[in-house]
Amino acid sequence: MKVISINAGSSTLKFKMYEMPEEKVIVSGLFERIGAKKGSYTIKYNGEKETKELVLENHVEAFKKLVRVLINKGIVKNLNEIGAVGHRIVQGGSYFSKSEIVTEEVYNHIKELSPLAPLHNPAALNGIDAAKEVIPNATHVTVFDTAFHQTMEDVNYIYPVPYEWYEKYGVRRYGAHGTSHMYVSQRMNEILGKEDTKLITCHIGSGASISAVVNGKCVDTSMGLTPNAGIMMGTRCGDIDATIVLYMMNQTGMTTKEMDKALNKESGLLGVSGLSDDSRDIEQGITDLNERAILAQKIYVKRIVDFIAKYYVEMGGCDGIVFTAGVGENSIETRRNIMDALEVLGVKCDVEANSMRGEEKMVSTSDSKIPVYVIPTDEELMIARDTYKLSK
Amino acid sequence: MKVISINAGSSTLKFKMYEMPEEKVIVSGLFERIGAKKGSYTIKYNGEKETKELVLENHVEAFKKLVRVLINKGIVKNLNEIGAVGHRIVQGGSYFSKSEIVTEEVYNHIKELSPLAPLHNPAALNGIDAAKEVIPNATHVTVFDTAFHQTMEDVNYIYPVPYEWYEKYGVRRYGAHGTSHMYVSQRMNEILGKEDTKLITCHIGSGASISAVVNGKCVDTSMGLTPNAGIMMGTRCGDIDATIVLYMMNQTGMTTKEMDKALNKESGLLGVSGLSDDSRDIEQGITDLNERAILAQKIYVKRIVDFIAKYYVEMGGCDGIVFTAGVGENSIETRRNIMDALEVLGVKCDVEANSMRGEEKMVSTSDSKIPVYVIPTDEELMIARDTYKLSK
Repeated sequence: MKVISINAGSSTLKFKMYEMPEEKVIVSGLFERIGAKKGSYTIKYNGEKETKELVLENHVEAFKKLVRVLINKGIVKNLNEIGAVGHRIVQGGSYFSKSEIVTEEVYNHIKELSPLAPLHNPAALNGIDAAKEVIPNATHVTVFDTAFHQTMEDVNYIYPVPYEWYEKYGVRRYGAHGTSHMYVSQRMNEILGKEDTKLITCHIGSGASISAVVNGKCVDTSMGLTPNAGIMMGTRCGDIDATIVLYMMNQTGMTTKEMDKALNKESGLLGVSGLSDDSRDIEQGITDLNERAILAQKIYVKRIVDFIAKYYVEMGGCDGIVFTAGVGENSIETRRNIMDALEVLGVKCDVEANSMRGEEKMVSTSDSKIPVYVIPTDEELMIARDTYKLSK
Repeated sequence: MKVISINAGSSTLKFKMYEMPEEKVIVSGLFERIGAKKGSYTIKYNGEKETKELVLENHVEAFKKLVRVLINKGIVKNLNEIGAVGHRIVQGGSYFSKSEIVTEEVYNHIKELSPLAPLHNPAALNGIDAAKEVIPNATHVTVFDTAFHQTMEDVNYIYPVPYEWYEKYGVRRYGAHGTSHMYVSQRMNEILGKEDTKLITCHIGSGASISAVVNGKCVDTSMGLTPNAGIMMGTRCGDIDATIVLYMMNQTGMTTKEMDKALNKESGLLGVSGLSDDSRDIEQGITDLNERAILAQKIYVKRIVDFIAKYYVEMGGCDGIVFTAGVGENSIETRRNIMDALEVLGVKCDVEANSMRGEEKMVSTSDSKIPVYVIPTDEELMIARDTYKLSK
């Protein structure tokens, strides 16, 4: 059966089609600038990459184009070959602790949760609408970024704010990147050859979060109510003294919208360095002895180390640390800095093994008390697996 | 020489008079509800406590009353016996890394920093005005709650927000309770019989902060720009996902003033439990199996443990943990819960030794990898010491 994994953003549509259960990638690609004057799509098939410009009025148009391309290229003969479509949903709130077939109820819950993910949930609904219109006979499945974190206990998801905020407005920790944390923790258990493990999984990309995973279940995670919590990110600040928000609004007259932009788009690596939100540019800045780039990297590393320290104590030890996502898979410097800062826990960086990007590999020494691995994440595959399982 | 330590709040004036350098407390007391219709004062002298009601128009009135009482009771014969007055200042910003004799420049800096401590700095200036008017011949000294934390490096005081906020508006971590952290860390070094130590000092009262102190110098602390940062407190939330502030303002239409009240007065133990901001009531709630009290205590303890874990890794180990202030000195349950949660670091609670309140005592077992002490704090004595030193 062919299964498509879909990740719809406000103006993008990423996809990957698998032959299941073989987990073989048949084709993948990306539609960009949907709704803009000039859009484009990129498709990877048979080792070849093709990019074309075109106008994409909306997500339905993009999806229609996608299936036309699939048929024109002979990748599928007719649409009934596509048995299921899996959709990535950023915010599933407290409703979803696992993937679900799309029903009216599921659809409405995702809609209801839009205030918590104003950029992501409405876009995902556009993706679902488009996919259902174009391939109505397929099984449509939603896979939630928050589902893996629903196993947390209340002590780890309730904030020390007025309790009514939780009851009336859903203010709690939901977490993010759950599909990735689940994937790399399962893979790490395979590598360790056991399931009763205490793991710390570091999904460090432009968005980033760290999870504590005990026996395959998430017990704590750094992302919070919104995608701006926990560690410092490319342009997001993470957890800070919350009254800074009020102090700065009073000092400058900024609106909540302007403040939201400042905390989400102008903070993090970009905010401190004044240079870039991209780890590669920060590393170049460090080479150039740019003081603010050096400071940004130090704070960035410190805040990751803080969470690893917390989770180590919270779990009462740790059997493995995993790095994944853009920075985690590719920033040799950042991984090295983090491992060096964890010396007191017996972590030892294998400098040679660590000098690589994007490979699944142990990057700690053999006598490191905690083994540290890089495991490239594969959220699309996890979506395809769940989608296939539910559509069988 | 007689030295008075002063701690002026917006409607209160706490004082303690010492014979220095003997460090002998001669008299202490408190003026309350200054500016209200009915005020009062309490004085402790010669083992006796006296409380009287009276109207106190302002801090000058209170200070005048104080010296009248001192003379009427024959505690001092004339005001020239009072050689110096030391004033506690909550926010000294980046200006002050040690105590200072009050000059016009010092006074103006404290005034300038008022937006960062709107309740405390103006009140302290009232206290200084009053003391200078009534005892003009004494040396007046300011002792800053933030001074001890000025040894932190930028990686630990810069927030990952736009850097201009630091440059233009002074947004950074300043810390709090510095006089207390300094006092207990110095005392802990005396107990350990060495000065090259790595200590974690937990000042846990209704306001609360935790510091990492290496070789007697503060390297990190949990309090931030404002007194609502770091760990959860009686009514304050501490560090949270900052965009909760914006989400809730958008959902409810709350103003920054209302939000400030919610985060500072209606959060923390009170917010989660819905019961009380007082640890003693929370402990009673736990005995009564009140679920929200149990949850509040769990979150409270977790957030303290989180900071101890962070500082342990940051310092690369720890030679001693100190509990002080209201909860730290008196809550047997909270200390026990924290020590139990630190098991993986080799901390072992001595249940019997820990069953006491307000004593200086080791509360860990002799085979605990990190010794844990209760050390009752004495900020007034620290103020008197610095004041005496500067006025000699």
